Amino acid sequence: MPFEVTILGCSSATPTADRHPSAQIINIRDTLILMDCGEGTQNQLLHYRISHSRISAIFISHLHGDHYLGLNGLLATINFQGRNTPLDIYGPEPLEKMILDHFNYSGTRIKFPLRFHVTHDRHAACIVDNEKFRVKSIPLQHRIPTTGFLFQEKEGLRHINVQACEGLNIPYIHFQELKEGKDYTDPEGNVHPNSALTDAPSAPRSYAYISDTRFFEELAEQIRGVDLLYHESTFLHELKERAIETFHSTPVDAAQMALLSGAKQLVLGHFSARYRDLTPLLSEAQVLFENSHLAIEGTRFNVD
Amino acid sequence: MPFEVTILGCSSATPTADRHPSAQIINIRDTLILMDCGEGTQNQLLHYRISHSRISAIFISHLHGDHYLGLNGLLATINFQGRNTPLDIYGPEPLEKMILDHFNYSGTRIKFPLRFHVTHDRHAACIVDNEKFRVKSIPLQHRIPTTGFLFQEKEGLRHINVQACEGLNIPYIHFQELKEGKDYTDPEGNVHPNSALTDAPSAPRSYAYISDTRFFEELAEQIRGVDLLYHESTFLHELKERAIETFHSTPVDAAQMALLSGAKQLVLGHFSARYRDLTPLLSEAQVLFENSHLAIEGTRFNVD
Repeated sequence: MPFEVTILGCSSATPTADRHPSAQIINIRDTLILMDCGEGTQNQLLHYRISHSRISAIFISHLHGDHYLGLNGLLATINFQGRNTPLDIYGPEPLEKMILDHFNYSGTRIKFPLRFHVTHDRHAACIVDNEKFRVKSIPLQHRIPTTGFLFQEKEGLRHINVQACEGLNIPYIHFQELKEGKDYTDPEGNVHPNSALTDAPSAPRSYAYISDTRFFEELAEQIRGVDLLYHESTFLHELKERAIETFHSTPVDAAQMALLSGAKQLVLGHFSARYRDLTPLLSEAQVLFENSHLAIEGTRFNVD
Repeated sequence: MPFEVTILGCSSATPTADRHPSAQIINIRDTLILMDCGEGTQNQLLHYRISHSRISAIFISHLHGDHYLGLNGLLATINFQGRNTPLDIYGPEPLEKMILDHFNYSGTRIKFPLRFHVTHDRHAACIVDNEKFRVKSIPLQHRIPTTGFLFQEKEGLRHINVQACEGLNIPYIHFQELKEGKDYTDPEGNVHPNSALTDAPSAPRSYAYISDTRFFEELAEQIRGVDLLYHESTFLHELKERAIETFHSTPVDAAQMALLSGAKQLVLGHFSARYRDLTPLLSEAQVLFENSHLAIEGTRFNVD
């Protein structure tokens, strides 16, 4: 089952001719989630041929324009094109009011179930818990209330040990129960323990989205052992003072967070418009944490 | 002196992979005006290498998202990049509140003079009158309060008749006064009438921006004799019923308005996303009004 992250935007506040503000599509076991929605996100979805009709939830980290100004336009398009399935939106409190104000002034009547869920930056919270995954919101330290998000897959089904099952001539009809952990009783009444017929399920995977924030050590505990860590890296470390002033991070901060949290893979994003060439940002992170990558738009990262 | 219109966006409500929502740059005698500001306008400015620092005013026709959702992002970028000259914004009343709400929630402090001017859809009004041009707001007939805008150049300076001036050995230092219509008195005290030394100034030019609206005959009187008429043409005439229902126009409506008003040139825009090929829209207008053109993004139309 897929668990992957597609980058739609990687610029910070000011876009450049070829970099758009923050947006990502997270495909977690065929549930599509839009993570942040900077201006132009609906165009990026068109560009990368991702249908907005497949998106079931949108998460907004905070109300700086480069993280949510594409939302009203996207919602209008979704509405216009006749959606009738629910859409869940998670974000800071004023978001609902701002969206409804726009609908009000533009005379738009929303024709599908739009459900708002308020996120808080005071404490971490489990905000989604379904059969496939959990999502935890994590307070970050930025200039305005901001949360990161941790997506944790739930443990999947056990894997059939084909050789063992064939050896006992177990009919396929029993495989689903075996995957779910049940023992097998043969026609003679002998019970075969599940552990002899299946292997343990794949390890649950996890993805953390950390943007925007200054570096703070306590964050590591919240995302301990994450498989894929996206971490903002607005400025090179030579602008560390500027990063501190504006509550942003550098590639060194991001790499240190990857090390501290025991992350397996690191993706850097939210690049300042001042950097035309991004390789110095990557190099800076790789010195500390080799498995680092740039959030180039269009790139799809597998969480594994 | 230039008077030209550059198209930055030509889609209607839903953008396509290669068409952006409404936005135009009007250069009227070296004053740059942004006309509507759909989502992604700041990227289109980057794409066509037009510096936002040159824009002195922004006009918003109405509060449907495809006409103004790029404004907050553009203003944030302008602010971020250290502007200190004033910027005037003309639009319907709730616009100011919506912009200030966003600044408030995003913790943005605007560091340059941002001046709001409310437009009204009850009656036409002269909303700008400076030494170079006038702007008139014109009520349109759409689903929410909407205005079009007429940009009218003022009469320029008279043109020097070089032969006549050289014949009298008039020093250059007097040319400015001659251009302004004054007579010339030679060193012997003889008065030479201005009309013998200069030719009449070029005829003042005009541009009308008409979007979005249903067709209504009374509009023609407001834009009588306009040199360049931009008129929305959302649907082909075969969807006339849909156009009426949604208070939009067809290329036939636009061409009829060009004929009725005595316009010299017509530009069609605001195309529905259903049309991949736009030539049928153009052909439909050209049957009635030959000097019709499509508002293809990047095209610059001279007003003359």
